Amino acid sequence: MLLSHLNFAKKVAIWQKTAALLSLITLNAMAQEVGQRERLVSPELKDDNTVVFSIRAPKAENVTLSGNWMPMVPDGNQGMKRQTVALTKDGQGVWSATVGPLEPELYGYSFLVDDVTTLDPSNLMVARDGTFRTESLLYVPGDASDLYWAKTGPKGSVHQIWYESPTLDLTRRMFVYTPPGYHESKEDYPVLYLLHGGGGDEEAWPTLGVAPTILDNLINSGKAKPMIVVMTNGNPTQASAQTISPKLPKVEQSARGMANMMFEKSLVNDVIPYIENNFRVKANKENRALTGLSMGGLQTINTSFENPNLFDYIGVMSMGFADLSRFGIEVDHSKRAQQILALKEADPELYWIACGKDDFLYESVVTMRNELDKQDFDYKYRESIGGHTWSNWRIYLSEFAPMLFK
Amino acid sequence: MLLSHLNFAKKVAIWQKTAALLSLITLNAMAQEVGQRERLVSPELKDDNTVVFSIRAPKAENVTLSGNWMPMVPDGNQGMKRQTVALTKDGQGVWSATVGPLEPELYGYSFLVDDVTTLDPSNLMVARDGTFRTESLLYVPGDASDLYWAKTGPKGSVHQIWYESPTLDLTRRMFVYTPPGYHESKEDYPVLYLLHGGGGDEEAWPTLGVAPTILDNLINSGKAKPMIVVMTNGNPTQASAQTISPKLPKVEQSARGMANMMFEKSLVNDVIPYIENNFRVKANKENRALTGLSMGGLQTINTSFENPNLFDYIGVMSMGFADLSRFGIEVDHSKRAQQILALKEADPELYWIACGKDDFLYESVVTMRNELDKQDFDYKYRESIGGHTWSNWRIYLSEFAPMLFK
Repeated sequence: MLLSHLNFAKKVAIWQKTAALLSLITLNAMAQEVGQRERLVSPELKDDNTVVFSIRAPKAENVTLSGNWMPMVPDGNQGMKRQTVALTKDGQGVWSATVGPLEPELYGYSFLVDDVTTLDPSNLMVARDGTFRTESLLYVPGDASDLYWAKTGPKGSVHQIWYESPTLDLTRRMFVYTPPGYHESKEDYPVLYLLHGGGGDEEAWPTLGVAPTILDNLINSGKAKPMIVVMTNGNPTQASAQTISPKLPKVEQSARGMANMMFEKSLVNDVIPYIENNFRVKANKENRALTGLSMGGLQTINTSFENPNLFDYIGVMSMGFADLSRFGIEVDHSKRAQQILALKEADPELYWIACGKDDFLYESVVTMRNELDKQDFDYKYRESIGGHTWSNWRIYLSEFAPMLFK
Repeated sequence: MLLSHLNFAKKVAIWQKTAALLSLITLNAMAQEVGQRERLVSPELKDDNTVVFSIRAPKAENVTLSGNWMPMVPDGNQGMKRQTVALTKDGQGVWSATVGPLEPELYGYSFLVDDVTTLDPSNLMVARDGTFRTESLLYVPGDASDLYWAKTGPKGSVHQIWYESPTLDLTRRMFVYTPPGYHESKEDYPVLYLLHGGGGDEEAWPTLGVAPTILDNLINSGKAKPMIVVMTNGNPTQASAQTISPKLPKVEQSARGMANMMFEKSLVNDVIPYIENNFRVKANKENRALTGLSMGGLQTINTSFENPNLFDYIGVMSMGFADLSRFGIEVDHSKRAQQILALKEADPELYWIACGKDDFLYESVVTMRNELDKQDFDYKYRESIGGHTWSNWRIYLSEFAPMLFK
């Protein structure tokens, strides 16, 4: 293990050095932009998985680090806030802190420089978390995070595709992952439909969710069957992630849109037929799986209840039978028992529910399990540590995918 | 025009409002993260194309804005720096400045908060400029930037594909754009190979270069023929953009790698055969085009000289016959006249050279044109304003693509 960390740290150093060398040809232009200042190495991962974070801020009075490995603590104002770590300043105005050792994981973090949220200027690994924020990324290698990064070996392709959704009256974008070997073979493949959460869009699972890489690694190690993975945009008002174009149509709609079943209708009427007409797909219940997180979990519940014979594998992540009335979302509970019985009758191979102990929707999962139990509905339950986080959703995907199509 | 700007501003407002509503379901989690602070709107584009930039920084003593629409000025230390705009603070600790009116364009910018480079926390549109930086993006709509954003209408697909490069002994990633209609039709298509610059990677043209959107818009308006566009990684030592995996192999290599012709060899021996075997392609000289910027311009020159009968359309952006000896890159000049004559004999349909008046490589283009003129070599020259910038490269692509395959 230590050796592989050494290799990793060395590789990062080589990468940074080589990147600098390859940049030489635009050095003139560059020098104008960044001045003559030496580039810091941040974050710097040490052999023991401690990490040194650094930022140059000579005039700042207070610099802290906020990373999603840190716990939430009371903010003194009836809310919660993420715990932070204080950095200390050296004689050159560089602030730094050593953190950890950290568990293997893909982390997001940012600095607070005199309370201004600042991405790490030395770190080019940045991801957007839906409409919430952008954050700097840190990968700590190890067994628990081994699925999250590309390695040598065969790889799937990711296709950004626009399709017509007559249901939503939009031309919409989705990402379709085809597994290693898809383009060389003549085989048909099973399909997993993978839904993001509220505030997210079709870029969520391919980026922070690292779904394509997780699938490559699971498939290459024989843990999951080769499958197609379809990552849609679950916001029924949105043609695509709006960062790619404010010019695309966007229907004004309230939060109620999340429960108006329009996305679910478009998934069944528009997305699945498109996939089954345009990819080499085993187009039957036995070879269709559906899972989603949070809002996508709600859409998974809704879709499986409305279409009990469509999917043989159903996964609900970080969502249950939630009371959404405070958001103006009213759910018709009277149909529930009937829907559960219809799905029980359809007898899917797997109904899987996963939630973290600290998830703010945990109680909704308890409610859901109680209602399923009342009807003797057969499901598997996976309770993890942690809350409503990408860390958990990557783990859930890593566990759900291997159970499919077997 | 004014009306369309109103619409645009309104759309952005609607987008932000709807995004906030769609996020409600994770509001509990969110509130913990961002505290109770109201989200600023920044940048705020006004009807007259002035733009208000804002950032909350109550403790800061000095906040400036650095945007790539601003000119370079002497830094007082024999170098150049980007001119900045000072922001002023209101009673709530929010700093802001009104800039412009700005010309229609896709801009990158950042704040300097007490000299710390800070992306705009209110703006989720962020792009990575190779190994140089990440920056916040601002789109100012208008005729000159109309090609750069997705609109309604048919759209091409973008495929992230891994291919074997025996030449470089790497499994490598590239982006392949297939035009609107490709998947429905049975036709074969011409191919444009589109190369990025030093410090960049295969993500450069699809993101900052917005090549897929430019092509969609050119093709849908009938200005360019439908074509496939191949966006490779031009760093011969790199499997892919290293932000996606430090675990992938990366060969340690000096800047000399840029001139060792290995990428050019892999383009001809690995990339082109892969494309011609895996896509519906018109596999002949008349239907192959090659262009690249800066380092990719050098690779374009090299490839066209070494393979005079491969491409009928060749475009060199922001590069000429540069003296790269200060970077340890020695070019064998003795073959040049002979190479020019061989290419003249092959008689390509178009040899196009584009450069900005302020480009730091401008003199290399003068040298190149002189040497081509000496051999009576037929080329077209496009001189633009500005320098070594994505603004120019997007314009060049917008002008080059319509001249192809006609």
